[in-house]
Amino acid sequence: MSRVATATAHPNIALVKYWGKRDLPLNLPAVSSLSLTLDGFHTTTTVTWGADADAMTLNGQPAQPKVAAKALRFLDLLDPARPPCAIASHNSFPTGAGLASSASGFAALALAGAAAAGQDTDPLRLSRLARQGSGSACRSLWGGFVTWRRGAQADGSDSHGVPVFGPDHWDVVMVVAVVSTAGKAVGSTEGMERSRLTSPLYDTWLAQAEDDVTEGETAVAARDLDRLGRVMEASTYKMHATMHTSQPPLMYWQPGSVAVLHAVWALRAAGTSAWTTMDAGPQVKVLCHRADAEKVAEAVRPHAAAVHILGPGGPTRLEDR
Amino acid sequence: MSRVATATAHPNIALVKYWGKRDLPLNLPAVSSLSLTLDGFHTTTTVTWGADADAMTLNGQPAQPKVAAKALRFLDLLDPARPPCAIASHNSFPTGAGLASSASGFAALALAGAAAAGQDTDPLRLSRLARQGSGSACRSLWGGFVTWRRGAQADGSDSHGVPVFGPDHWDVVMVVAVVSTAGKAVGSTEGMERSRLTSPLYDTWLAQAEDDVTEGETAVAARDLDRLGRVMEASTYKMHATMHTSQPPLMYWQPGSVAVLHAVWALRAAGTSAWTTMDAGPQVKVLCHRADAEKVAEAVRPHAAAVHILGPGGPTRLEDR
Repeated sequence: MSRVATATAHPNIALVKYWGKRDLPLNLPAVSSLSLTLDGFHTTTTVTWGADADAMTLNGQPAQPKVAAKALRFLDLLDPARPPCAIASHNSFPTGAGLASSASGFAALALAGAAAAGQDTDPLRLSRLARQGSGSACRSLWGGFVTWRRGAQADGSDSHGVPVFGPDHWDVVMVVAVVSTAGKAVGSTEGMERSRLTSPLYDTWLAQAEDDVTEGETAVAARDLDRLGRVMEASTYKMHATMHTSQPPLMYWQPGSVAVLHAVWALRAAGTSAWTTMDAGPQVKVLCHRADAEKVAEAVRPHAAAVHILGPGGPTRLEDR
Repeated sequence: MSRVATATAHPNIALVKYWGKRDLPLNLPAVSSLSLTLDGFHTTTTVTWGADADAMTLNGQPAQPKVAAKALRFLDLLDPARPPCAIASHNSFPTGAGLASSASGFAALALAGAAAAGQDTDPLRLSRLARQGSGSACRSLWGGFVTWRRGAQADGSDSHGVPVFGPDHWDVVMVVAVVSTAGKAVGSTEGMERSRLTSPLYDTWLAQAEDDVTEGETAVAARDLDRLGRVMEASTYKMHATMHTSQPPLMYWQPGSVAVLHAVWALRAAGTSAWTTMDAGPQVKVLCHRADAEKVAEAVRPHAAAVHILGPGGPTRLEDR
């Protein structure tokens, strides 16, 4: 007997950033974070609960063994005595290049897996589960603006996403300038540990993070883009500062990243409210009003391989099929 | 009656960085710093004490009015009732592009001016004076490794360079990758004030700076390049972190800067002890053993408009002419 379920999830981009873990096995963060779930990009994943053997495809091809092993181990969290399962996952955007494919990937997998297993699909439960696959995935269960509370419990039960405002709250967009789609040189978990162990700025980063989340939530509530942009850039460049001051230095930026940053800041100096953020990769994401999206896209296009305009997206959901 | 004196000074590059002022009119720093005076590049300045009128040439051309006014005002510090003076200054390298031309410039001007005025040319006195022209100039009075103690006195009397080890102590070199010779978008004084007033990392930067100088001095004394390199990079990227987290962000890096950083770090990962530093401009300076200088130059050359290899330089000195 086998059961099949399909779920679709969107990636999310942190507005107040996540970097650093307080527990590796449970994927518990050292800081809270605030994100925006994005439409346009999505991961759609089908889980067959009860297959001939464990197997995974990604975009129609057999997944790399490490990727498949991680996804299938994740299903063990749903049921340690589960039957063999088949996972078929599709990303509508580049995988593993700082475009948050692991966030949408584990959110979709959590929902499709739980549904296929005939289990409770409460998003709070799935957020805690998704977190253990990839930390930021716990924020993609909901649409719009989501806070991931770091929590205090050793078992991680209070470390999960919390919906703050839905996708209709505010029509801001992220203009994503894809500078390079090469994979990461240093993965996030390894990078976070390097920062924790070696960066002289890590303690300061931790000490200020919770206040930044509060400030970000306040700015979102007030729909105050300049205020949100200021704390987003402060959080972003504090996070990258802990990377640059690690030993050896972690530098996710590429030459094109810096070209995009200068272009956006020049636009802002000329009066457009456009604000930059970056994650553990070379892409630059620019937060702005939808009315300014084309102007921002035009400014960054000379420096980017591709430009995407993505508005607020909805929650992780089951597909009827 | 007129008297003429000519002095030559070398620029210096901070190994443990200077960023932030505790007093603007006296140019007193918020942190101590440690530098290496470099040969190869130099400024030669002739002061005529008693001329027809105040005047200044730079590289044989009339200096820009702001530059001339600042240099001539500096001579007022030697004698508020001085006669009209003529200044003729030559830089052997690009001016105002993060290559420390103001350091060699004010060191040479201090010595040439004091000698032309018939005054005491004790380097300690001239270091305090040069500091008021350009902070980092106070380190160029001496060759080799120099510490600028931040000092505690309100009048700045204890804020000056202190020679630590002469140029013959250790045969390390700076490989200077010139990425761009365009002038600065935001001058150092304005940038430092912006960091002090707006960066959430500024206090942490201050709190750790004195320990970094001590660590740097210890590494220089032990001729331990890896140890010196580690603290130099930590200090460098903490300083740039205060810039990147300022509002609006201060980003002195250009795309080519990041390309050079990646090239040097790849070389280091492959076993060459090569360490990066940057100042308030796009150039990247690489500290390494002289034996590795050509290898480093080769690695950065594809990304640079010009590459210079500069070893430890001597003190500011009078020329016989």
